[in-house]
Amino acid sequence: MAPIQPAHQPAVERIVAAALAEDAPWGDVTSEALIPAEATATAELTAREPGVFAGAEVLRTVFRQVDAGVDVVLKVADGEAFEAGQVLAVISGGARAVLLGERVGLNLLQRLSGIATQTAAFVRETAGTRARIADTRKTTPGLRALERFAVRCGGGHNHRYSLSDAVMAKDNHLAVLTRGGTRNLTEALAQAKASLPHTVHFEVEVDSPEQIEPVLAAGVDTIMLDNFSIEQLRAGVEQVAGRATVEASGNVRLETVAQIAATGVDVISSGALTHSVRSLDLGLDIRIGGNA
Amino acid sequence: MAPIQPAHQPAVERIVAAALAEDAPWGDVTSEALIPAEATATAELTAREPGVFAGAEVLRTVFRQVDAGVDVVLKVADGEAFEAGQVLAVISGGARAVLLGERVGLNLLQRLSGIATQTAAFVRETAGTRARIADTRKTTPGLRALERFAVRCGGGHNHRYSLSDAVMAKDNHLAVLTRGGTRNLTEALAQAKASLPHTVHFEVEVDSPEQIEPVLAAGVDTIMLDNFSIEQLRAGVEQVAGRATVEASGNVRLETVAQIAATGVDVISSGALTHSVRSLDLGLDIRIGGNA
Amino acid sequence: MAPIQPAHQPAVERIVAAALAEDAPWGDVTSEALIPAEATATAELTAREPGVFAGAEVLRTVFRQVDAGVDVVLKVADGEAFEAGQVLAVISGGARAVLLGERVGLNLLQRLSGIATQTAAFVRETAGTRARIADTRKTTPGLRALERFAVRCGGGHNHRYSLSDAVMAKDNHLAVLTRGGTRNLTEALAQAKASLPHTVHFEVEVDSPEQIEPVLAAGVDTIMLDNFSIEQLRAGVEQVAGRATVEASGNVRLETVAQIAATGVDVISSGALTHSVRSLDLGLDIRIGGNA
Amino acid sequence: MAPIQPAHQPAVERIVAAALAEDAPWGDVTSEALIPAEATATAELTAREPGVFAGAEVLRTVFRQVDAGVDVVLKVADGEAFEAGQVLAVISGGARAVLLGERVGLNLLQRLSGIATQTAAFVRETAGTRARIADTRKTTPGLRALERFAVRCGGGHNHRYSLSDAVMAKDNHLAVLTRGGTRNLTEALAQAKASLPHTVHFEVEVDSPEQIEPVLAAGVDTIMLDNFSIEQLRAGVEQVAGRATVEASGNVRLETVAQIAATGVDVISSGALTHSVRSLDLGLDIRIGGNA
Amino acid sequence: MAPIQPAHQPAVERIVAAALAEDAPWGDVTSEALIPAEATATAELTAREPGVFAGAEVLRTVFRQVDAGVDVVLKVADGEAFEAGQVLAVISGGARAVLLGERVGLNLLQRLSGIATQTAAFVRETAGTRARIADTRKTTPGLRALERFAVRCGGGHNHRYSLSDAVMAKDNHLAVLTRGGTRNLTEALAQAKASLPHTVHFEVEVDSPEQIEPVLAAGVDTIMLDNFSIEQLRAGVEQVAGRATVEASGNVRLETVAQIAATGVDVISSGALTHSVRSLDLGLDIRIGGNA
Amino acid sequence: MAPIQPAHQPAVERIVAAALAEDAPWGDVTSEALIPAEATATAELTAREPGVFAGAEVLRTVFRQVDAGVDVVLKVADGEAFEAGQVLAVISGGARAVLLGERVGLNLLQRLSGIATQTAAFVRETAGTRARIADTRKTTPGLRALERFAVRCGGGHNHRYSLSDAVMAKDNHLAVLTRGGTRNLTEALAQAKASLPHTVHFEVEVDSPEQIEPVLAAGVDTIMLDNFSIEQLRAGVEQVAGRATVEASGNVRLETVAQIAATGVDVISSGALTHSVRSLDLGLDIRIGGNA
Repeated sequence: MAPIQPAHQPAVERIVAAALAEDAPWGDVTSEALIPAEATATAELTAREPGVFAGAEVLRTVFRQVDAGVDVVLKVADGEAFEAGQVLAVISGGARAVLLGERVGLNLLQRLSGIATQTAAFVRETAGTRARIADTRKTTPGLRALERFAVRCGGGHNHRYSLSDAVMAKDNHLAVLTRGGTRNLTEALAQAKASLPHTVHFEVEVDSPEQIEPVLAAGVDTIMLDNFSIEQLRAGVEQVAGRATVEASGNVRLETVAQIAATGVDVISSGALTHSVRSLDLGLDIRIGGNA
Repeated sequence: MAPIQPAHQPAVERIVAAALAEDAPWGDVTSEALIPAEATATAELTAREPGVFAGAEVLRTVFRQVDAGVDVVLKVADGEAFEAGQVLAVISGGARAVLLGERVGLNLLQRLSGIATQTAAFVRETAGTRARIADTRKTTPGLRALERFAVRCGGGHNHRYSLSDAVMAKDNHLAVLTRGGTRNLTEALAQAKASLPHTVHFEVEVDSPEQIEPVLAAGVDTIMLDNFSIEQLRAGVEQVAGRATVEASGNVRLETVAQIAATGVDVISSGALTHSVRSLDLGLDIRIGGNA
Repeated sequence: MAPIQPAHQPAVERIVAAALAEDAPWGDVTSEALIPAEATATAELTAREPGVFAGAEVLRTVFRQVDAGVDVVLKVADGEAFEAGQVLAVISGGARAVLLGERVGLNLLQRLSGIATQTAAFVRETAGTRARIADTRKTTPGLRALERFAVRCGGGHNHRYSLSDAVMAKDNHLAVLTRGGTRNLTEALAQAKASLPHTVHFEVEVDSPEQIEPVLAAGVDTIMLDNFSIEQLRAGVEQVAGRATVEASGNVRLETVAQIAATGVDVISSGALTHSVRSLDLGLDIRIGGNA
Repeated sequence: MAPIQPAHQPAVERIVAAALAEDAPWGDVTSEALIPAEATATAELTAREPGVFAGAEVLRTVFRQVDAGVDVVLKVADGEAFEAGQVLAVISGGARAVLLGERVGLNLLQRLSGIATQTAAFVRETAGTRARIADTRKTTPGLRALERFAVRCGGGHNHRYSLSDAVMAKDNHLAVLTRGGTRNLTEALAQAKASLPHTVHFEVEVDSPEQIEPVLAAGVDTIMLDNFSIEQLRAGVEQVAGRATVEASGNVRLETVAQIAATGVDVISSGALTHSVRSLDLGLDIRIGGNA
Repeated sequence: MAPIQPAHQPAVERIVAAALAEDAPWGDVTSEALIPAEATATAELTAREPGVFAGAEVLRTVFRQVDAGVDVVLKVADGEAFEAGQVLAVISGGARAVLLGERVGLNLLQRLSGIATQTAAFVRETAGTRARIADTRKTTPGLRALERFAVRCGGGHNHRYSLSDAVMAKDNHLAVLTRGGTRNLTEALAQAKASLPHTVHFEVEVDSPEQIEPVLAAGVDTIMLDNFSIEQLRAGVEQVAGRATVEASGNVRLETVAQIAATGVDVISSGALTHSVRSLDLGLDIRIGGNA
Repeated sequence: MAPIQPAHQPAVERIVAAALAEDAPWGDVTSEALIPAEATATAELTAREPGVFAGAEVLRTVFRQVDAGVDVVLKVADGEAFEAGQVLAVISGGARAVLLGERVGLNLLQRLSGIATQTAAFVRETAGTRARIADTRKTTPGLRALERFAVRCGGGHNHRYSLSDAVMAKDNHLAVLTRGGTRNLTEALAQAKASLPHTVHFEVEVDSPEQIEPVLAAGVDTIMLDNFSIEQLRAGVEQVAGRATVEASGNVRLETVAQIAATGVDVISSGALTHSVRSLDLGLDIRIGGNA
């Protein structure tokens, strides 16, 4: 397996800094009143349920930003599966620092590992097919860089990063392009493609099998078959015959994804990977000890 | 019903700006290639399932930031319940602007309305009791201001905003305070309280009934009974007898919350309101029309 | 004495960075023209008058931001009294760096130590009473975190941090609440209190003894007796009889504070601690030496 | 009189935004609980003591940032003297908005008008002489742009803005320049001057009359006579004889400034204008009225 | 001709704001001393040499940020050619505002129109061929969004925006991929391609004709023929035969570009469009008039 | 030769950070797909043509920001001349980091060394005269701090930094000052000068010899002779006779600058140093090696 591409570190730093500023704009009044400045602590990040890990560098960054003296030792790697009860990381340092970073660390790790775990379930269902599982732009505002990374940790692939880096023409766009039936779809798409930087991927979404030929004729890179039945998907793959990447979308659930993959599509994209994730149950067991 | 306190507008502006920058760092290549600059569009934000609305000002801010010329007309108010199929808002303006704001608007509104809807379900279960449903710090990093607002839209209440504005002493803190059994818990808590600004709320979490008396004796404002059984909660409420606000926490689910509320506690806090929310199914039906 | 809670380090970093950018947006033309890059310097921060010290970490941060190679050795601790002529800190490193941080360091330390010194005078006057000396929101815009810290260094306590974290209902608010005499003050206050997060402290300011009972009846946390005479304060403390924290405000000066404290109030708040402080006379005696 | 140059508006906007974020990071819990959203208010900014006004645009900016619907009508101009009891401005709009901006507005206006008033007193003492009263870099960190503006409102002049825009060579610099007596002061200064951009002002501080000739010989623009006696100042002015601007510094107080000015110096600079200012007593009398 | 896609407005706003802050951090001391606040001015942006215009919205943004009351009327459109002496825009408003924006406006417009003009010259040379002229990442740090826009104004096309949005494998990358000759180039490239999001364009640069077949066999989107002779380019186009987009690079000058285009390549990329541009000679003729 | 004053480091950090964010907003997809994380690289920054070096600290900052583990060894110093083929710096570290910083490093170094080289040519032409070569405000928006530094590396001097730190009165300003011929130019200038901080340099541009006397009579610091013929310049220098610094401007080219310098002017300013610079041809020769 190729190593997982890490989340871009500047994005990690920015997200963590904002989260800490939100959670402790002017310190932790509880620790400052109750915990001696010189007390130390050791905390174990422990899984309360099985899953797939995501967020090693995120965890390190949380505690490094709180206090560079805190030590974070990871016991699992990004993308690694773990059991309930397993210790995922050990954090040690000043007690106030450990307590300050606790909630932000958990909030991020639980969400990321939840996404990785759910993605891994989809990937498992499609093992042995050519289909890759891909995310969408239905990510949490502000956390896209991390959530895309978590999808990779689960064995999934990323779709375009944003509106700025690949074309995805949907029904609305096609309706405008051919307005009043006065323009030929193939010509209109080809003309639009010619206006783009040559490095911009051109993907078009179709709602019915009839659209496949005119869209392919324009030389698109990917054709997305949206809400096609299993039968239609299988026929669509045959019809495209390698002339473009085929992406299936719509009604993608853990129960349906194996069937969809079996139709031979190249990509199955699902907003469910990120837009409704259950945070995985991870806990931080803290022991506060002697002086630092 | 008192009107819902809106989310702090500067926070809304900042969150929306970051979300738009993330989703379109240098424009929308699709619209720019396929949609004429002068085309207009009308979009209806429509519920695909019933729920409780949250995010009127967020929606307005998304499209105002994209293009001040876009018009957003809300058809429901924050905190209002809606049916499947109901139109929640109508957005009209330049087609490129409407398409640019679509995904960010949906990502935010689906999440916020999902939180409001889930909170409202908890609130409904506890109707007729003195218990308020309260959120926790288990919010999405970066979105706390909005998620707290969504809890209010669902009829819930907020807990402390951050580590900086109220004390919450948990088992770890108490263990440190009484280290080696050499210090009396009541005295230690009282001394800590005296060191705080007099406006800082002092809440202590206890894990067993035996801790209730020594904690109350220190003059705390709120006592949190953590993971108490229903029986223990009822006894705890009697024992506290109005000397402090009583908060129940742990194992709070839609199935258990009515029972917990019936014990007479003042506050029931639940991380589940925000940490694992299913985005509500809302859609934006866009019709692209003539020239602006 | 409990250790003084330090200023929140991210706030220190931000304030110092802004001050340095303001004072040297593109370097120090004097040093660059007159001081060889390799010259070193040793500077003693010396008191020109007696006082109470505040700002150890601020001083360290100023010179660390200018040049991580500068060494700052503190000779007094935050909250410690010093004599005229006493050396408070020794700073050594590159001469250009020492000169670059000089003015920003002095501007901050003189102000903070001025506040600590003035606060300590108030605290001394009230020794032996139950009254704590508290600051207000009359702080220098942008420097609140540091000025609150300086108040703590002088033995004072902090009041609420901002408008966002505790209720303070004043005459204007009460006038609105009971508009036209159609609403009962106690009921109106109780209803407002119920709408708040349970962790938000509820303080009400009263201008006359008649307001005490109806305000207490609403279950407020603190009652502020504003501009009461010494007699009225003493009577007010008796009347409240422990049902709320009693805060005195108005006409608080070094000459009057002992009398006020003797009435038995819990808190005496004074804007004078921060809104009109004389900078303490501290100097930096610099000796520029050989090569680094 | 030439009109007073206003404070740079981007600086005003930045300072006000930071002050509001500090004072209400997530709203005003008091107003939100007690004041109906639709209530309106009218507030009069009233002088409780006589003084000189500074901050018209600052006041407008505070309330514009809070809510663009608030109306601010100024009754005095920057630099204008006022009497105790005089209404300086009338602010009207939503009651929550007026209350939200109250403290930040007062904190800024009291400080700026305090500086203007104190400066005007110095200026009055020196009327009829050629001396201008100038500020220094002993300003509040973060507020320099506003405090310099307040000095101008009081009829004073500004000194250099920062370390980046004019040379000020002090004893430390001169000691380094002539290290070991191996270098001639005039030559060293002339060489330093030649290395500077020709638009950078070159000012040198001298501690004794003997330094005047060698410093002038280097072609400096301004010579600062530091802590000279009145006699020495008068002799110094004669000696310089127009070959450079003469600045007096040290021991500048309201009681001494007239004597200093009478010696014929061009500039009298004083840190006291800004580093220890008493906030002027201004108040905001608020009347909360009907619906907006 | 399709309309030119404008520069992303948030990027324009950010670049202009930074430029104004750099050029007038605390105002324009000249205007403030010499120009009455109420004076008005009219300025004509005039071409001193012929060229192609780029920057209409940039110019509007400069003066809008300085003062919303300044009026900017464009006389040419982005991408339009103009003659020496032609008036390109008329700016009118407060004289201080016009003077404040003058230099920043000219600095930006001269550079952008210089790029557009140079690009148009390349485009003219290649008229009638299938080759598009494309830019590179050799842009001025901080100005990429504007410089790419200027290339479009000149009739050119953009290449990838950044390292984040398309693969460009060069000799270094290929050397690593096949290290020690132990890996087959085609397989290695195909494996790398499979690891990418399917929307990421895959371009490979080759230095010799021998590399063409193994690279094409991996299914790349674009093959870049780097520093090929005209003969080699022509042969390369034939060999690729439509299996990928063909890009020519290296030694692209105004004198050579027609020959290169005549070989049948699809794209000709040149760093010279942006990395060494001569600013076009534009001037602002200002007439300062009566009162505003 | 006095050492070159370095660029202000905070400016360097900010410019480099923005450039890296622009060039790799979410990583380098090419390296991440093709280069193993553990691969190392050594790169030589090599001159492809002779020139003068500028940017040592810029280069270090680029790679330090990318990855603190990258080692940068400079082989030339700022301001040093180099030959074609000479190695200017050696960069070694993780291959992905070296590749990530390559383009940003080259874009900056080529531009800065281009400016230094061009400036050095002007300086060489004027050797033996009293004239210094000075830059203008015609710099690249956002890069002024670096471009001014590059001018110094070439042996040139800087002019004023911005509109905020020195007066430069041009024809437009003079026209306003004397409007309708109703005001005497000398008096008007003298009055304007009196309103300025005494540390602000006062420079006036004149277009004809007749203006010299009235301008000098106002006591200006520098007089700029704009577009004067060589004859007029020589006469002007004589006429000024040391009463002010004399600056020549207009039609300054490498071919004319020696003649201009020979007239005896003190300063020759030229926008050509920065507004139309050819990037110097520097390359980065990268060898990717074994594991880190």
